[in-house]
Amino acid sequence: MLCDNAGGVPTALAATETPSPVATLGIIGPGLIGGSFALAMRRAGLCQRILALGNKPQQLAQAQDLGVIDAAVPIERLAQEAQLIFIAVPVNAVASVLAQLAPELSPHTLVMDGGSTKVGIIEAARQVLGERVSQFVPAHPIAGSHQSGVQAARSDLFDGRKAILTPLAENAESVVAQAAAIWQALGATVYTLTPQEHDEVFAATSHAPHLLASAYINSLLGTPQTALQLRMAGTGFKDFTRIAASSADVWCDIFMANRQAISEQISAMMEQLQEAQQYLQQGQQQELHQWIDRATQVRANWRIQP
Amino acid sequence: MLCDNAGGVPTALAATETPSPVATLGIIGPGLIGGSFALAMRRAGLCQRILALGNKPQQLAQAQDLGVIDAAVPIERLAQEAQLIFIAVPVNAVASVLAQLAPELSPHTLVMDGGSTKVGIIEAARQVLGERVSQFVPAHPIAGSHQSGVQAARSDLFDGRKAILTPLAENAESVVAQAAAIWQALGATVYTLTPQEHDEVFAATSHAPHLLASAYINSLLGTPQTALQLRMAGTGFKDFTRIAASSADVWCDIFMANRQAISEQISAMMEQLQEAQQYLQQGQQQELHQWIDRATQVRANWRIQP
Repeated sequence: MLCDNAGGVPTALAATETPSPVATLGIIGPGLIGGSFALAMRRAGLCQRILALGNKPQQLAQAQDLGVIDAAVPIERLAQEAQLIFIAVPVNAVASVLAQLAPELSPHTLVMDGGSTKVGIIEAARQVLGERVSQFVPAHPIAGSHQSGVQAARSDLFDGRKAILTPLAENAESVVAQAAAIWQALGATVYTLTPQEHDEVFAATSHAPHLLASAYINSLLGTPQTALQLRMAGTGFKDFTRIAASSADVWCDIFMANRQAISEQISAMMEQLQEAQQYLQQGQQQELHQWIDRATQVRANWRIQP
Repeated sequence: MLCDNAGGVPTALAATETPSPVATLGIIGPGLIGGSFALAMRRAGLCQRILALGNKPQQLAQAQDLGVIDAAVPIERLAQEAQLIFIAVPVNAVASVLAQLAPELSPHTLVMDGGSTKVGIIEAARQVLGERVSQFVPAHPIAGSHQSGVQAARSDLFDGRKAILTPLAENAESVVAQAAAIWQALGATVYTLTPQEHDEVFAATSHAPHLLASAYINSLLGTPQTALQLRMAGTGFKDFTRIAASSADVWCDIFMANRQAISEQISAMMEQLQEAQQYLQQGQQQELHQWIDRATQVRANWRIQP
């Protein structure tokens, strides 16, 4: 069931089974990710009814108006009636949601989250769910947008993207298999990682770039040249900084939740900057060329892999 | 003729005149930028014949096969016969090209370069051209591609893009006007900056991001997790690192030519990284949120301006 390792890199899970449809899907936080999960589940014919709750009344109303969900309900009712619950709230709010679900949760309901960090969420889940943590399969779809909110939700958001599961020792194999089959049915390629692997990998490839893009924008601000610089900036600047436009609420939570791994990545970045700065200041053109070319070769040969 | 200043930000030059067509255009370095200049000049009906030279025989042959240029000629002949010469070679090779042109240059020929840095090129141009420096209008089209070579050249590469001129005290106003009119006829919006302003602005908005993207890629390499990280990386990584795939030859020259301003920008970046790292390590969530949101607001409201 779990992934093979080929040179330390996991291979995707084979698509082995069709997931069991559920009568009622529960979405907690029907924004971009939660709303897209709802739309994709409906597109795949995997649920008959979608209940939701969230802390933004306007977003809930909008989700209902757009047909993304069928009804907004209190959390007790959602916990009792849903056979599948997807939690798509900021990572630091997942534990509180799980704690509210716990007393009412039906014993066969599968619960997944979509959080961008995993270690902290799993620690909290064990505390608040107790034995019921066996019903919780931590997940992270590698999909998103710099837009946010249910109006940006799309049924094809997960098509051709990765979904990472970080199964727990407490999860039965059949539960993990059902979780994997659901993400595959939504169009994603499923990988499993340990929670620690997950957090380190995404600190490096997702969280750090977001923080670096913000740091770069901030490094331009507050000088007499700022307005001129922003006026003259072109397509390189545009792509390099795109992720800095993302929601500060979402990313602040992610940065705090994964702060040790991100901090290590920032240190690695600063070492590289010091190396480059030394080459510049000492006129070491040959060393600088090798340093640039190392990155050029890697990036020129890199492609997104499903 | 020169730009107005509105709050320190120059406004684009008004399109005032049609440039005088030339019988013969000379291109030195018919790659992506030089080849696109040739194609755009031909599209605008501004030249009858295009001569070229370059240090890559294969590129010259390809430029001729593609119809981008009419003939490859020695530099003496190009200097004698062209009424407009565009130099599109790596920035550290511009001075040597100007030195070879100088003895044969016709007194009314307009010479422009397309280099991404200006201060160093202008210093060298004054030395090698002497009085003839009045015929040299330094230029920098803000257009490009992570692709390179004449096969990537396009007649519309400058459409809707900026072209920066950094005119010299030695340039007659009519010469600068002709240079500006040419870039406008090729589809660009023309701005004038001082050479110092130019180099500082593009260190911040173009050169530093290229260096930062390379530093980030290098920060991932050589660890047991590298292969896994590159395998899992998604669209945020893709856009953030796109510019790191650019030619190491071209960018090493640019970094060295503008090393002081770039080094200052790296220092500003490192200050921001230290600030963010402190917030992470000390759990200062509120300060981190403000720090992220400052960048978010700026980037979310930024658009490329013509």
